[in-house]
Amino acid sequence: MIGKTLWAIAEGYIPGQSTGEGPALESHETLCVLNPNERDASIELTLYFTDREPVGPYRLSVPARRTRHFRFNELKDPAPVPRDTDYASLLRSDLPVIVQHTRLDSRQPALALMTTMAFPGG
Amino acid sequence: MIGKTLWAIAEGYIPGQSTGEGPALESHETLCVLNPNERDASIELTLYFTDREPVGPYRLSVPARRTRHFRFNELKDPAPVPRDTDYASLLRSDLPVIVQHTRLDSRQPALALMTTMAFPGG
Amino acid sequence: MIGKTLWAIAEGYIPGQSTGEGPALESHETLCVLNPNERDASIELTLYFTDREPVGPYRLSVPARRTRHFRFNELKDPAPVPRDTDYASLLRSDLPVIVQHTRLDSRQPALALMTTMAFPGG
Amino acid sequence: MIGKTLWAIAEGYIPGQSTGEGPALESHETLCVLNPNERDASIELTLYFTDREPVGPYRLSVPARRTRHFRFNELKDPAPVPRDTDYASLLRSDLPVIVQHTRLDSRQPALALMTTMAFPGG
Repeated sequence: MIGKTLWAIAEGYIPGQSTGEGPALESHETLCVLNPNERDASIELTLYFTDREPVGPYRLSVPARRTRHFRFNELKDPAPVPRDTDYASLLRSDLPVIVQHTRLDSRQPALALMTTMAFPGG
Repeated sequence: MIGKTLWAIAEGYIPGQSTGEGPALESHETLCVLNPNERDASIELTLYFTDREPVGPYRLSVPARRTRHFRFNELKDPAPVPRDTDYASLLRSDLPVIVQHTRLDSRQPALALMTTMAFPGG
Repeated sequence: MIGKTLWAIAEGYIPGQSTGEGPALESHETLCVLNPNERDASIELTLYFTDREPVGPYRLSVPARRTRHFRFNELKDPAPVPRDTDYASLLRSDLPVIVQHTRLDSRQPALALMTTMAFPGG
Repeated sequence: MIGKTLWAIAEGYIPGQSTGEGPALESHETLCVLNPNERDASIELTLYFTDREPVGPYRLSVPARRTRHFRFNELKDPAPVPRDTDYASLLRSDLPVIVQHTRLDSRQPALALMTTMAFPGG
């Protein structure tokens, strides 16, 4: 089978500015999770910062045989993610999943993209 | 030798908009597969979504000692890939291959690119 | 647990030109390090070039349960990183950490981004 | 230690168009190789295509404790790399090295970038 239960992403930064219209073109970072299993996956996400204690866990779930692309911009509980601030993230899942990170950055009037697979542990 | 028979990509999103002329600059995502073997590789691709059952398998082949860069935009059987919709993909090959994913995004009038190696399993 | 004590990045290039205002939009490359451990991590970074001896070590630290995103542009001791010059980097840490590399490139008037996890060793 | 002797990159495409002035902003793809060893590394690169036989080996070398960022645009022997054409590449080194791939794409008047570590074998 495929996937891991522990993943890390060292980069994190949601630009506070955007150009373009609508939520699709708003500057954002996304945590893409694929759950190819036959059971729902329960995920705990912890965010790390430069000069304050980690925040979390954010509790997320991905149903069996589904993908969910979570925007960091929309995380709220236990706290929203500050804009224009460096962060990093660590994800624990009760089932093996696959995790990829993206940023869409529209601070200047032509969007930029970047992506990488997260780093697997466990 | 090199390569794996099982690969996953958690990110997937074909923008419904494009700027620029011609198919080269149309917004698209691509599944790049390298088959360095002396035999043809048979591939089954399954697409996962947020709120519906997986679709597939899409049956693809890569001849011996060739690369093929498949556009997700052009997949048709068993179903075309919806635009402006989150998806993810899982690839199984009968021979070890190497898989990389790219997006060219031309929604705004200056294209953006992103790429990553897919995540290997097996 | 998660992370490695040895990481390499083969790409390195700080563009000497920028458009846009302020340090956020200045062309730069960043070494993102996540230290999920309960102890501070001590890091030695060595830079490699095309036609001169390696430079380093640069001594960096990342406190326990923190992330730091170091700009290569701001490294000074033992020497600043030259602009418009190819380089590569090798990182050694006394504790397992996670390392990711990014470039923001604003030479032309719409920024471009790229990122990848560094390659782990050890 | 760190590095591998066999690496693959499934994506390859040199855009035939560019905007901006000078070689720095010409559309190109680059093979970044870091050789952290105390001996020079000898490399053989083979290019794969969609509908023709592989081309190679291209013979490259990276001196001890150096990095070289080879532009695919400048490869000539045994043959130049065609523009606007899908390709892939396989690299063999006599010593462990680290390999990363980038594209700078300036077909539209604001450059785009993408990068990923190559996939290791061996």
